Amino acid sequence: MVNEVVVVVPPRTYKSAGGPGLLERYRAELSNELHVAIGGEQSELLKLLRYHLGWVDTNGDPSSCAEGKAIRPALCLFTCEAVGCRRDRALPAAAALELIHNFTLLHDDIQDGDVERRHRSTVWYVWGKPRALIAGNTMRVLADAALMELSKFGASASSLVQAAYILNRNYLEVIEGQYLDLSFEDRINVSTADYLDMIGRKTGALMEASMHLGACLGTKNDRRIEALRQCGRAFGSAFQIRDDILGIWGDEVMTGKAAGADIRRKKKSFPAVYALEVADGKMRQRLLDLYSSPGELASEDVTVVLDILEEVGARKMSQRLAEEQCSHALKWMHRASLPSWAQTDFEDFTDFILHRTY
Amino acid sequence: MVNEVVVVVPPRTYKSAGGPGLLERYRAELSNELHVAIGGEQSELLKLLRYHLGWVDTNGDPSSCAEGKAIRPALCLFTCEAVGCRRDRALPAAAALELIHNFTLLHDDIQDGDVERRHRSTVWYVWGKPRALIAGNTMRVLADAALMELSKFGASASSLVQAAYILNRNYLEVIEGQYLDLSFEDRINVSTADYLDMIGRKTGALMEASMHLGACLGTKNDRRIEALRQCGRAFGSAFQIRDDILGIWGDEVMTGKAAGADIRRKKKSFPAVYALEVADGKMRQRLLDLYSSPGELASEDVTVVLDILEEVGARKMSQRLAEEQCSHALKWMHRASLPSWAQTDFEDFTDFILHRTY
Repeated sequence: MVNEVVVVVPPRTYKSAGGPGLLERYRAELSNELHVAIGGEQSELLKLLRYHLGWVDTNGDPSSCAEGKAIRPALCLFTCEAVGCRRDRALPAAAALELIHNFTLLHDDIQDGDVERRHRSTVWYVWGKPRALIAGNTMRVLADAALMELSKFGASASSLVQAAYILNRNYLEVIEGQYLDLSFEDRINVSTADYLDMIGRKTGALMEASMHLGACLGTKNDRRIEALRQCGRAFGSAFQIRDDILGIWGDEVMTGKAAGADIRRKKKSFPAVYALEVADGKMRQRLLDLYSSPGELASEDVTVVLDILEEVGARKMSQRLAEEQCSHALKWMHRASLPSWAQTDFEDFTDFILHRTY
Repeated sequence: MVNEVVVVVPPRTYKSAGGPGLLERYRAELSNELHVAIGGEQSELLKLLRYHLGWVDTNGDPSSCAEGKAIRPALCLFTCEAVGCRRDRALPAAAALELIHNFTLLHDDIQDGDVERRHRSTVWYVWGKPRALIAGNTMRVLADAALMELSKFGASASSLVQAAYILNRNYLEVIEGQYLDLSFEDRINVSTADYLDMIGRKTGALMEASMHLGACLGTKNDRRIEALRQCGRAFGSAFQIRDDILGIWGDEVMTGKAAGADIRRKKKSFPAVYALEVADGKMRQRLLDLYSSPGELASEDVTVVLDILEEVGARKMSQRLAEEQCSHALKWMHRASLPSWAQTDFEDFTDFILHRTY
């Protein structure tokens, strides 16, 4: 499946400070809605949330460090607008998506023991795991509360219920994906199909929800809604595969995450899955030995794995798979009959995602 | 405040296998609804949830160990029925309450590092913290999904939205209470008022939601709804204070939790708060020294604290405070003009809670 190159988008260069229109256009409105969702109360607990979101430092003083890319809310607002609706209708859903995503990050960092995210110490590393766990759960509650605001923007009770249903069901898929991801760490026989199923849930499901919610809130046309839902899912997989590439070969300065960490932890990200699938002879045996040994890999073993990935062309094949998933996303997007500005916007955006360095 | 004894209910004896009518009557229906909410899928992840709920053993084989008391769902169903409505209308809310409560337990056990609950190993102790964290989040998602089933029992979209709002807002209070509880561990100046505020959130808020939801789903009478909401809150505080007593002087065989653990961890449960408030001279200094020392208390220090609690009459005062909160609950209950069977039922129930040993 990974050998068939379906589309190759010519690479462009984006500055890390900027990004494609689809990501930049909604930033101010989203930021405003997120501040409303978190509220003005100056509690110790909310400080942890504001810190995680990049708004304050550990003392609670305003900080101007890097915020997240906010891809999910941007996709949601874009989709709502692309089907011909005022984007503010989808603002509460966009805020909910960003908060639920950040909730998963807070808990992921605890789970993985990661000490750094977005160039800063993680919440658990500063305040301890019990408080970080609670902060994550708070982020989740505020996501649900943010969604409730849909009614202020004209949504009926039944469309609010539908939105809550979509968000909840897709988040359940995210959990299933996380659980599969964890269980893959103890397995060496993970196929490309297993991997694609896992990332479709872990990352695809919330991207799917983003476009699905944007579409549902913007139109009643079931055909367009379904096409955009599928588009989000495939896009999410492309995003994750690029993330896997950056998790191994990314520049630590750009990504804000430790390079090579995915190899050291023997994570079954796509390059590893691919290498375990195609390597043969001694190389295969070496990989199997390393990936079935207990605990984390030593630095010299990380180098061995990196050499094998190079040898089997895992990086190139990963990029091809990301491109393939992007082409699925674009195919679905075209079926949604969006206006030309939106088509161009989304194409630029997928191009950015495929070549991003952070 | 704690010196004024408002009501003393004569103690009765309940067998640990049984309990008051209010707790026993709804058990079969609730169990059925919970099984529907968890679903029939045989996944590894759902096995952890079923294990936590006491349905299966670590291998996933049926088990007949102790389930939880299921107080919250019982209160919800009771309240719905007591205001004159068919109780099945509230079944989805009852299931959601029990699942959200169990979600908090799963995360609490991770937070506190507790290795035993309901006489069995905790989920994180068997499967590790990352998986237990995910299992907890899954329980929470399934709680939300269970609530959505209200529409199948005739609730309109707007009453479903209202129910979701109540559950979400009150759960946020639970989190705030948990966070306060954690922060109290590092403080020695916790007053009775601080303590009551904390347990009102940590435990009262979800009991409040239980009766509030049952009332909202069963009647449109705002006066009754408000009285029952307040009743739930006060009842929750009474429940927590009795829990604090059992956490220090309870029989490990009955409670399924390690006795004295709350002292060892220097938890600011009510007996400790009271002793720190009323002890004087050398006794006070000794307590302050112990409670401001870093880490857990050694066994001999636990004995010192137990002696001081004895000396200042902390156990008796804790029981009085629980009775006082119960009398508040009963006062609110009487304002709700319930039929006499329901009044008797609730009185029996509070009596049970005040004297329970597990």
